[in-house]
Amino acid sequence: MQALDVIVKKRDGGVLTQDEIRFFVEGFARGEIPDYQVSAWAMAIVWRGMNADETWYLTEALADSGEVLDLGPVVPLSVDKHSTGGVGDKTTLVVEPLVAACGVPVGKMSGRGLGFSGGTLDKLESIPGYRVALSVQEFLDQLQRVGIVLSGQTGDLAPADGALYALRDVTGTVPSIPLIASSVMSKKIAAGAQAIVLDVKVGSGAFMQSEAEARKLARAMVAIGRKAGRRVVALLSDMNQPLGFAVGNALEVKEAVETLRGAGPADFAAHCLEVGATMLVLAGKVSDLRLGKRALQQAIDERSGLEMLRRLVQAQGGEVEYVDRPERFPAAPWVETIEAKQAGYVRQVHAGEVGLAAVDLGAGRRMKGEQIDHAVGIVVHIKVGQAVSVGQPLFSIHANDASRREAAIRRVLKACSFSRRPVPPLPHLYGKLGP
Amino acid sequence: MQALDVIVKKRDGGVLTQDEIRFFVEGFARGEIPDYQVSAWAMAIVWRGMNADETWYLTEALADSGEVLDLGPVVPLSVDKHSTGGVGDKTTLVVEPLVAACGVPVGKMSGRGLGFSGGTLDKLESIPGYRVALSVQEFLDQLQRVGIVLSGQTGDLAPADGALYALRDVTGTVPSIPLIASSVMSKKIAAGAQAIVLDVKVGSGAFMQSEAEARKLARAMVAIGRKAGRRVVALLSDMNQPLGFAVGNALEVKEAVETLRGAGPADFAAHCLEVGATMLVLAGKVSDLRLGKRALQQAIDERSGLEMLRRLVQAQGGEVEYVDRPERFPAAPWVETIEAKQAGYVRQVHAGEVGLAAVDLGAGRRMKGEQIDHAVGIVVHIKVGQAVSVGQPLFSIHANDASRREAAIRRVLKACSFSRRPVPPLPHLYGKLGP
Repeated sequence: MQALDVIVKKRDGGVLTQDEIRFFVEGFARGEIPDYQVSAWAMAIVWRGMNADETWYLTEALADSGEVLDLGPVVPLSVDKHSTGGVGDKTTLVVEPLVAACGVPVGKMSGRGLGFSGGTLDKLESIPGYRVALSVQEFLDQLQRVGIVLSGQTGDLAPADGALYALRDVTGTVPSIPLIASSVMSKKIAAGAQAIVLDVKVGSGAFMQSEAEARKLARAMVAIGRKAGRRVVALLSDMNQPLGFAVGNALEVKEAVETLRGAGPADFAAHCLEVGATMLVLAGKVSDLRLGKRALQQAIDERSGLEMLRRLVQAQGGEVEYVDRPERFPAAPWVETIEAKQAGYVRQVHAGEVGLAAVDLGAGRRMKGEQIDHAVGIVVHIKVGQAVSVGQPLFSIHANDASRREAAIRRVLKACSFSRRPVPPLPHLYGKLGP
Repeated sequence: MQALDVIVKKRDGGVLTQDEIRFFVEGFARGEIPDYQVSAWAMAIVWRGMNADETWYLTEALADSGEVLDLGPVVPLSVDKHSTGGVGDKTTLVVEPLVAACGVPVGKMSGRGLGFSGGTLDKLESIPGYRVALSVQEFLDQLQRVGIVLSGQTGDLAPADGALYALRDVTGTVPSIPLIASSVMSKKIAAGAQAIVLDVKVGSGAFMQSEAEARKLARAMVAIGRKAGRRVVALLSDMNQPLGFAVGNALEVKEAVETLRGAGPADFAAHCLEVGATMLVLAGKVSDLRLGKRALQQAIDERSGLEMLRRLVQAQGGEVEYVDRPERFPAAPWVETIEAKQAGYVRQVHAGEVGLAAVDLGAGRRMKGEQIDHAVGIVVHIKVGQAVSVGQPLFSIHANDASRREAAIRRVLKACSFSRRPVPPLPHLYGKLGP
């Protein structure tokens, strides 16, 4: 078999066999198929797509390129979640402790933020001492002992996916449903969870801006889960406006702690209950979503979720003091709140632009590897559909620099629009797929 | 400007600007844009195409990546020809001497064969001593002094095209009209000829198998010529069956010499007059094709074309003896002639398969850099539409090895088909475009 023949077959719209896909991925992983052939192949896939079988073969080959963890000997059934990324999406910080508090072990590997999209690892590193780099053994030990782990990628999971993603990132071959779906699912499968809840974001602050595209991606990932013998449910949730109020690392950790105390933003709390209850159902802990939400609410009311977050932070070397007294997080030197100049209804709070304003402030990265400032960010005080009166706070900018602050204010002001007539609120969920 | 943005723009179907194309080609030529970005970009071009302006900007950037010869100080007007490649296409060996004999200087750089398609340099190297590697100075001196040059690529012409073609060859990004047209024309423009006749082959033994595709390619190349201020005419000529009878290097040189003596195959002689007359008209030497053909026929009848071939061979160090007595060419050890077993009409002599049979014999290359045997090849004795009787020779195989001979016989037999009812002959020309 020749790499060129596989490229030509896909270029001409052919359907690749399992052997062809495995040959290509393994050849790339071993360095035998050069980058320039892989990028041409990836562009042909962006062009021609892949059917469900091809997408599964690709996922399997990527997962098999490294270690595949078996969590079976450690916990009876572990559940994982994955968000496709958004603005203000601190869901993991709330849901994982709540689900673990309900008795379902959660071992999750997270990523860093890039562009308008934040990353859980960056948020966690707001807590001094918190170690995101765990060995496989540490990951498994902690999962068994504490019942909750939240780390960066551990071990040598799906290394071919890492290499392929790095190449796609610089060759314009990211936007392809089969390539995205196989990338996400190969890591999830290699990480070993038996049940996975996918939170597929839709809207201006998401990778998938249209509901139709998000639904296609969700369908592709659920199909992969089925072929892999994992229980997978995908939620399609709104990302047209930021989730909750806080955007920025320490600000989001604080909001997560408030939510675990029962004082979080209504939309965000509702989202956490939805995702968490889906995880509990998928894990077989409860028989339906209603019971799942009830159990999670109880974990909030009794502070057992908050206690689980404390244990997580403690287990990974972070200063628990910050969970107990979030006011200890260093504040940004400049905090400015912008108020409404006229009354009306909120028509739009463009999530992507708010995310970029946070990047302007230094809360996120324009390029991989950039330093970030954990203290800075934006707190948005409004939601689409809400009535505002003159003088009501719209958003607060937490900045470490006057000119960055001005840039962020300009961007957030442009991100918001208002109407004189009532505006309906945005839906929270657009649908659910699987298992 | 970022290479990634240029890739993404083309991927999404955008029209690239001159600056973007120049940035990309220059960055690639300087080694600043890596191969993996260039191959993804090339695949996006295969997918999305390029309009006439983009194709011209690409051609210009490729030509400008190296030396651009100026033949003006050497000869008043030089004319060049280019064939897109075929089977039995020894046209250059006849047309160049004839046109030069008519007083129009011809300086041409040719290529080698690959796959079913033969190459003029390989044919010339059948003549012992013939030097295809000339310096720019030698090329210019000989053009001025002798009025005819036929060499490999001289100097550092369009080096970015060479690098891009090598990359396209291994990444499945060859079949794209704008990429093919810009590749051909960038070299022709850099080689300095003011007038160019393009012989675009159509059919089973050509790169373009359909007339529609060949016409698109011809149109793209003529449009580039117009933008470059060169006089360009494209002929669409048949390549469904081999041109002339001989396929194989020394066999083709012999057939070319016979044609210059007025004893060549009718279809091939007619093709040479058509191409040559178009060159004479384009050079302003004659006012119409009829006069051009008359002048060329006179050069055949008076042997001035043959004399010009002698001078060419002599100027480039070849043994002129081989032109004078072509029977001196070493013969293949095995020559076997296959005869018709039943009477009928020739329906097909599949040019591509005959070309591959010659490769089987060792006359051509499966991969670049392979050694070839100049003596071996096939002489096809029949043309589509011709009536054959039992025992009439169909083709002769000139082989250096019994098993290769058998493989070639099998392939040529499959390449030929016959009909009981009369079959119309194939057209010679499908059309003409430009200037």
